[in-house]
Amino acid sequence: MTKIGFIGTGKIGQTIAFNTLMGGYVDEAVLYDIIPDLPEKFEHELRHALASRRLKTEVLGTNSLDDVTSCDVVVVTAGKPRKPGMDRRDLFVENAKIIASLAKELPKRNDAIYVMVSNPVDMMASIFMKVSGKYTISTGDQVETMRMRSFIAKKLKVPVNYVNGYVGGEHGDDAVILWSTVTVKDQLVGDKVDKEEVERYVKSIPGDIIKAMGGTTWGPGTIIEEIIRSIVLNENKVMSIAFPHYFEDEIVHISEPVVVGRKIGPSLESLLDEKDRWHLISATKDFYSFYKESLNRIQILA
Amino acid sequence: MTKIGFIGTGKIGQTIAFNTLMGGYVDEAVLYDIIPDLPEKFEHELRHALASRRLKTEVLGTNSLDDVTSCDVVVVTAGKPRKPGMDRRDLFVENAKIIASLAKELPKRNDAIYVMVSNPVDMMASIFMKVSGKYTISTGDQVETMRMRSFIAKKLKVPVNYVNGYVGGEHGDDAVILWSTVTVKDQLVGDKVDKEEVERYVKSIPGDIIKAMGGTTWGPGTIIEEIIRSIVLNENKVMSIAFPHYFEDEIVHISEPVVVGRKIGPSLESLLDEKDRWHLISATKDFYSFYKESLNRIQILA
Amino acid sequence: MTKIGFIGTGKIGQTIAFNTLMGGYVDEAVLYDIIPDLPEKFEHELRHALASRRLKTEVLGTNSLDDVTSCDVVVVTAGKPRKPGMDRRDLFVENAKIIASLAKELPKRNDAIYVMVSNPVDMMASIFMKVSGKYTISTGDQVETMRMRSFIAKKLKVPVNYVNGYVGGEHGDDAVILWSTVTVKDQLVGDKVDKEEVERYVKSIPGDIIKAMGGTTWGPGTIIEEIIRSIVLNENKVMSIAFPHYFEDEIVHISEPVVVGRKIGPSLESLLDEKDRWHLISATKDFYSFYKESLNRIQILA
Amino acid sequence: MTKIGFIGTGKIGQTIAFNTLMGGYVDEAVLYDIIPDLPEKFEHELRHALASRRLKTEVLGTNSLDDVTSCDVVVVTAGKPRKPGMDRRDLFVENAKIIASLAKELPKRNDAIYVMVSNPVDMMASIFMKVSGKYTISTGDQVETMRMRSFIAKKLKVPVNYVNGYVGGEHGDDAVILWSTVTVKDQLVGDKVDKEEVERYVKSIPGDIIKAMGGTTWGPGTIIEEIIRSIVLNENKVMSIAFPHYFEDEIVHISEPVVVGRKIGPSLESLLDEKDRWHLISATKDFYSFYKESLNRIQILA
Repeated sequence: MTKIGFIGTGKIGQTIAFNTLMGGYVDEAVLYDIIPDLPEKFEHELRHALASRRLKTEVLGTNSLDDVTSCDVVVVTAGKPRKPGMDRRDLFVENAKIIASLAKELPKRNDAIYVMVSNPVDMMASIFMKVSGKYTISTGDQVETMRMRSFIAKKLKVPVNYVNGYVGGEHGDDAVILWSTVTVKDQLVGDKVDKEEVERYVKSIPGDIIKAMGGTTWGPGTIIEEIIRSIVLNENKVMSIAFPHYFEDEIVHISEPVVVGRKIGPSLESLLDEKDRWHLISATKDFYSFYKESLNRIQILA
Repeated sequence: MTKIGFIGTGKIGQTIAFNTLMGGYVDEAVLYDIIPDLPEKFEHELRHALASRRLKTEVLGTNSLDDVTSCDVVVVTAGKPRKPGMDRRDLFVENAKIIASLAKELPKRNDAIYVMVSNPVDMMASIFMKVSGKYTISTGDQVETMRMRSFIAKKLKVPVNYVNGYVGGEHGDDAVILWSTVTVKDQLVGDKVDKEEVERYVKSIPGDIIKAMGGTTWGPGTIIEEIIRSIVLNENKVMSIAFPHYFEDEIVHISEPVVVGRKIGPSLESLLDEKDRWHLISATKDFYSFYKESLNRIQILA
Repeated sequence: MTKIGFIGTGKIGQTIAFNTLMGGYVDEAVLYDIIPDLPEKFEHELRHALASRRLKTEVLGTNSLDDVTSCDVVVVTAGKPRKPGMDRRDLFVENAKIIASLAKELPKRNDAIYVMVSNPVDMMASIFMKVSGKYTISTGDQVETMRMRSFIAKKLKVPVNYVNGYVGGEHGDDAVILWSTVTVKDQLVGDKVDKEEVERYVKSIPGDIIKAMGGTTWGPGTIIEEIIRSIVLNENKVMSIAFPHYFEDEIVHISEPVVVGRKIGPSLESLLDEKDRWHLISATKDFYSFYKESLNRIQILA
Repeated sequence: MTKIGFIGTGKIGQTIAFNTLMGGYVDEAVLYDIIPDLPEKFEHELRHALASRRLKTEVLGTNSLDDVTSCDVVVVTAGKPRKPGMDRRDLFVENAKIIASLAKELPKRNDAIYVMVSNPVDMMASIFMKVSGKYTISTGDQVETMRMRSFIAKKLKVPVNYVNGYVGGEHGDDAVILWSTVTVKDQLVGDKVDKEEVERYVKSIPGDIIKAMGGTTWGPGTIIEEIIRSIVLNENKVMSIAFPHYFEDEIVHISEPVVVGRKIGPSLESLLDEKDRWHLISATKDFYSFYKESLNRIQILA
């Protein structure tokens, strides 16, 4: 029996839940949001879709956190989304309060793996884990990873399954392409692509999409489902998600290629060259300093 | 080589295109909209999703109808969507102009099956076919069909694949449940459900969803993909979609169970009892009278 | 809860069961054979395969018919298979005894749809239904239907999903291509293919495969799974399977295009032209006369 | 364009090729065997199955190695299979000659990843790589890995996706369960199972299946497809397959958990405790001594 909880049924929460349920590997799902009637009507939409796919997943939409019980995996998309022109980190204070409050409530009724999606996603994962004491991951840079691969495939006119490699660090503007992992067929990509152009694309494309479409949904909503599936089915795929690292006196979430199953790990740092490792360390330090400073700004976590 | 054109990349157009591409049976897709930058950025979202699924479908987002060429199937979602409180038929005049104009342009570069989704969907299909002279279907009552099955399954606490049967007539408030086709396992549903309650649900649920969510997307977007798949792959599934009927001096689109492959038909009218047939005839007459009257209101088709 | 029984775990029984379980829509399966240890070890093989696909279907291999209970669908492959040079009808007497005996036992513990695969398959379906009084279908000419489509696709160098159409009549040497249904894209195939060559292929290819490979498994095993899926999931696909026709004083099983869901029907005779209809009537008469004569030869059914 | 070559179309070769093609991710496949007419007729069986699944993969069955060209992946199942009572290593001399000869021919026309399945599979991989100089893997202990997981799931009455962990060393009687990797949900399995019983099962079940069924096909044929898929689609799943290790003066193939994509690696040795590492070293030494001795017995490689 696989049961998944979706906390937040905004645009991205809906897309993730839809893709996950259509995967056919979930027995039961609960959809929670604070907006009245929204999760209930989303439940109906999903029932209609499940009817078309002949799937018998049980679904419940609810405004009560008490209904979110006994989940194997809980996916958190609650909080404010980025607006055009906004940086993910600008959402820290507002979303941290929401996440901290969920971190107190959800573990009471769920012995689950927690998957954070709310932005700034890596820091929200750190806060959730700090407050709840429960193992938490952030979907991190797997989204950037797939954006990078799709761009290189398009540039080189090869099928996307020829392209491998990862983006690491903090999700967002500071993410770095781990060039020592990037291959086409089984060869390092080397000079076949203009690396700066790829880096610019990975950084700028989410903002461009938000501007034109109001938000990014289809990309992240599909990529994050792949993460959930790998966890639930113990597929043990290597993905670049952010998992807990102990740094100084805090747990910080930084993405690097790691095995994703019911257990997360081990990390594949051994894949990386010196330069890429240095990038990750630098990202960790930068994360830590912003994170510590921000924590001080919010009473709730003091 | 299967190529599909999506005309309109609003919410519902996006959901249908996403589901269709994730199905893995399309070689090439073109996404068209008049809104600048929207189809282009949607193309990127789809590329990211395709990367995650390791699919190599070619995708092009464009603001130029000239790029929509050589499609096997063209799916039209262009036009205004319903707003809360609005009836589908209220959209007739505004959308008819858009559809008529597409009907003049699209067949120049596409020898395709045309699938209408824009509301009022059955009438828009009739207009498209009238103007273009090309075979056109409307997704019609297949959406209601799945809503009805999902509701009965929920009520009777059985898996949705136990429930069969169809909704026919005009998509929207005048759709009728064809009770002589509704079975649970292989038995007529009879008094196992409160028929009026089922009818109320099918009529009211889309409006309720629009109110809470701003539009219906996940249900129709999945169900319509099932129609597209059945056409493209020649699956020959029986579905309740609206196909051309010759009535008096016009072609009118009315839904009834029909075989859906690269060829649409034959209809399964033989499944229906007298009462259900009478409902369909009545729906046809009602469609015709509103349609004729409305045609007179729009210059473009005069 | 979907439970399927497989009676017979020889080559073809194994292939059908494997494909069905890998489809992911079955909750429970029971595998029966009279050969000691065979179904039990096949159960283990399936468990290993299910582990790889992360499916949690319950499987039981057994030598006791008492374990075959509460199935929704029972698939019968028991009996002797054809050997090189043998005609399907040569198996009548020997297999009829086995089938009649199963027809007495299976309905005691299963309120199921019975799917006959043992040869001569249509006659075995008729016997099973005659003895059991339960609704029975034969997989009939759906196998020939797909062979025909694959051959035409290869000849015309088009993807197989462009080709539609059906083979009808009795499964085996007397099957007839229903040319009035055969289309490429949405056009009748007409003279695009050499019809006699297609007919020769459909007739001769199973014997050729048996000679080279010892039996036909992959083709029928996949095609028959498609039938089972359409039944279990109420997909309502049109397929050419043999369902009960009342002819003179017997039920006879003849294939023609028919809607396949939890309920079988209606038939799509309306698709056929005069010539094709005449072929089906002729097949029915021929079936009846061989069948009646053969029935007299077996005591058990007297 | 993904093209896969299958060298050998016996029982296991057929099952792997069937599963791979039904996966829908292959554009072209070539099936080679020395037995006249066998690969050609298998091609027809596959065409019929592909028609049912509406897949347009190109397939060619052939008796000429010259037709095996431009493959991305070549899967080798050629050679004698085990008979009841036989040990895999008994096949060494006979199969080594076949494999060495293929290793001279295949790289001329294919710049591929070579996947060895012929037994004794790890040694045949080493020979293929030694003779061809091309990167070769053996499907190794991934088969045992899934057998172990399925057995533990059955014993503990949990879904198989709750069970994780790997079997390593040489495929066959000397394979060892790497207990430090075996988890249920995310907890080490500890005393929840009788470890000796699990070990006995993994060792004895293939022989038991061969005795009852004449060979193992469905389990390995599905599990090996999962390996191929992970390579072709760059899924980067961790699996326990045998990849090249440099030991003394030879390349030897030993299974341990490793990332499987277009590039194989890195290995996840870091997952293992001391005891499990010691087992792998011991397996490597044992492999080497038998392998060196056996090499001396075959002229062809001298």
